[in-house]
Amino acid sequence: MRYPVGVVLERTAGALRAAGMPPEPAATVAEVMIDADLRGHHSHGVLLLPVYLERIRQGGIDPCAEPFWIREETPVSVLDANGAAGQVAARLAAERSAAIALQAGVGVVAVRHSNHVGMLAAYRAPFERTGVVGLILNLAGTSVAPPGGQRPTMGNNAVCLVVPRGEQEAFSVDFATGAVACGKIRQAALQGTAVPEGWLLDRDGAPSTDPVQLDEGGAVPVFGGHKGLALSLMIEILAGAIGGGVTSRGVNRQRLWPDRVMDCSQLFVGFLPSAFGIASMAPFLEELEAAVRDSYVSGPPALYFPEQYEAQARKEAERDGLRIEPEVAGVLGLC
Amino acid sequence: MRYPVGVVLERTAGALRAAGMPPEPAATVAEVMIDADLRGHHSHGVLLLPVYLERIRQGGIDPCAEPFWIREETPVSVLDANGAAGQVAARLAAERSAAIALQAGVGVVAVRHSNHVGMLAAYRAPFERTGVVGLILNLAGTSVAPPGGQRPTMGNNAVCLVVPRGEQEAFSVDFATGAVACGKIRQAALQGTAVPEGWLLDRDGAPSTDPVQLDEGGAVPVFGGHKGLALSLMIEILAGAIGGGVTSRGVNRQRLWPDRVMDCSQLFVGFLPSAFGIASMAPFLEELEAAVRDSYVSGPPALYFPEQYEAQARKEAERDGLRIEPEVAGVLGLC
Repeated sequence: MRYPVGVVLERTAGALRAAGMPPEPAATVAEVMIDADLRGHHSHGVLLLPVYLERIRQGGIDPCAEPFWIREETPVSVLDANGAAGQVAARLAAERSAAIALQAGVGVVAVRHSNHVGMLAAYRAPFERTGVVGLILNLAGTSVAPPGGQRPTMGNNAVCLVVPRGEQEAFSVDFATGAVACGKIRQAALQGTAVPEGWLLDRDGAPSTDPVQLDEGGAVPVFGGHKGLALSLMIEILAGAIGGGVTSRGVNRQRLWPDRVMDCSQLFVGFLPSAFGIASMAPFLEELEAAVRDSYVSGPPALYFPEQYEAQARKEAERDGLRIEPEVAGVLGLC
Repeated sequence: MRYPVGVVLERTAGALRAAGMPPEPAATVAEVMIDADLRGHHSHGVLLLPVYLERIRQGGIDPCAEPFWIREETPVSVLDANGAAGQVAARLAAERSAAIALQAGVGVVAVRHSNHVGMLAAYRAPFERTGVVGLILNLAGTSVAPPGGQRPTMGNNAVCLVVPRGEQEAFSVDFATGAVACGKIRQAALQGTAVPEGWLLDRDGAPSTDPVQLDEGGAVPVFGGHKGLALSLMIEILAGAIGGGVTSRGVNRQRLWPDRVMDCSQLFVGFLPSAFGIASMAPFLEELEAAVRDSYVSGPPALYFPEQYEAQARKEAERDGLRIEPEVAGVLGLC
C-alpha cells in the first residue's frame, strides 16, 4: 500500500514520540528514515522503525539522551553520542563539520558511542547550506566476509560524498563495502523472496539465496575483491579506529543486542572548495557526468550516473506516495 | 638480471642528474621509484625512468622547477607543482600535511599542475615520523571505462591510507580504481606477454588480452562495478575538482604529451590520532588483521592482508637484488 509522504513522516515521528522520544529528535530520526524511502532505499527507510522501537524498549537507544562534546575545537571535534539515536548525533556532527570547514577550510567531527545512523546522504543539508563538500564514513557491525572468506568479521562499512552545487540538491555518492546492503537482504526476507546469487553466504560459508541466513550467522561478501577489502579497511581505520576507538568487531549489532548501545562510530570531514580556490563544484559535476556518458559507444544505459535512480524514486514517491510494508503500516496505525 | 638495490638507486638518480635535474630532486624521484620496486610494484618502479627522461627532454617535466605555495596556511595549504617532477611536489605536500596535522589535528594539502607521482605509499615517511594517519588521493589521466562502457573517459585514480604504528614500518593500503594498474599492462607489453581477461578493452570496446591496445585507445574497466565507479568519482571530486580544479579529462597523459605538464593533482589529508583521543594505531591494526584472518574457516590463504605481499617482495629484493628489464638496465649503464 502507498501513503502520502507527509502522512508517513508524521506517523513515524509520532510513533517515536509515543515511545518516549522528545519531539525534536523524533522529527530528526523520522526525517532521516523517510529521506531514504524517498530516494528509493527502503532498506534504510521506515522499515527500520520496528527495530528502533524495540531498541528503545530494551534500552539500546536512549530516547532522551543528549550527545555531548568530548572535544569542541576547530578544526577537529569529537562527539559522544551518549547512546542517543544515531541520527541525532550524526546530524549534529554534519552541522559542526560544515561550520568548521566554512571557517577553517576543513572541518572534522568524529562520533562515538553511537547507534544506527541510516543512509549517510541524508545528512547533506548542512553541506548544501554552506557549500562545503562532505565526506562521511560509517563503521558498521560485522556482517561482511573478505574475498574468499566465510565468516562475517568485518562491517558493511559505508562511505558518502556530498557535493553541493548551488540551488540544486547536492550531488552525492553513497555506498557500503558489502556486495549489497544488509537491509536489502532483510527486505527480501520480509517479502519472502530469494536474493540473487553473490549476495549472501550461509553460516557455513556456502553461497545462499535464502535471505533468512543473514541473521543466522551468514555473511555478505565484500564488493570488488581485494580492492573492496582495502576500502573497507580504510573505513575501519578512519571511522572506526581513529573516529571511535573501535573496529567492527567492537560494534554491537542492533538486532542481536537490542539492549545495548551499538557503539558504532562515524567520521565527518568537510572541505570548503573556496579554500582551495574553487568557486563552484557545478561545472566539475557536469564534466564528470559527460565523461561517464561519453564512454558508451552506443549511448549510455538508462541509469549511468549516481543520483539518477534516487531522483526518479523521489519523483515517483512524491506523485504516488510511499510504499509501506504491512508490518510497518500496522506500527504506524495506517491499517 | 638482478642488481643490488643501492646500485640501482644511485644509477637512477645519476641518470636524472645527467638529464639536468639537481641532486636533491633527482634523489627524491629515484627513491620513490625504487621504493615501488622494493615493494614488488615494478609498474611504478624504475621502469618509468625512460618515460621521465623523455619528458624531461621534451619539456613535460622541468627538472629545475621548484614548486611554490599558493596558500600556505593551517589547516589548508595549496601547492603549485610548477611543472616539476611530481615526486618532488608530493613529498613536500606529504610533509606539510603531516606537520599541519601534528599542530591542528587535521592537515590538508592540495597539489596542482603536477606530474606523475608514482606509488602513493612511497610518501609514508613524514606520516611515520609524526604518527599522523595519511589519506592520499591521486587524479590520473583518462584510461578507465565505467561499468559496461567502452571508451577511457575516467582516470585510474588512486587512494592510499598510511597508518603509522610506532617503530614498525607504517601499514598502508594503496590501490587504484581500474581493474588493474595501467603500468602492469605496459609491463606485459614490454615483456611481450598477453594480459588476463578482464584487464583490458581495445579501442572498439571489445575485451582484449593484447597489452599493446592500452596505449592505442584501449581502456581498463573500472573495478567493482557501480561501487568502483562511485569511488572513482569521489577521487575525481576530492583530488581533482577540489584539489586541483580539474577532472581526469583535463590531465595530459604522460606518454601521449611528453612536451606538456600533466596537470594531474593530489589531495593529502593528515589525521592526528591523539586529537581524537587515540594513543596508538597498533592495536587496531592487529585487530583488523585478526578479523580478516578469522574469516577463513579452513585457515587464511598465504596472502590475505594488505602489505604482506610488499613485505615479502622487499625481503626478496634486499636479499637477491632488484630485477631490472634490459631496456632499463641499458639506460642505467648496467649492461
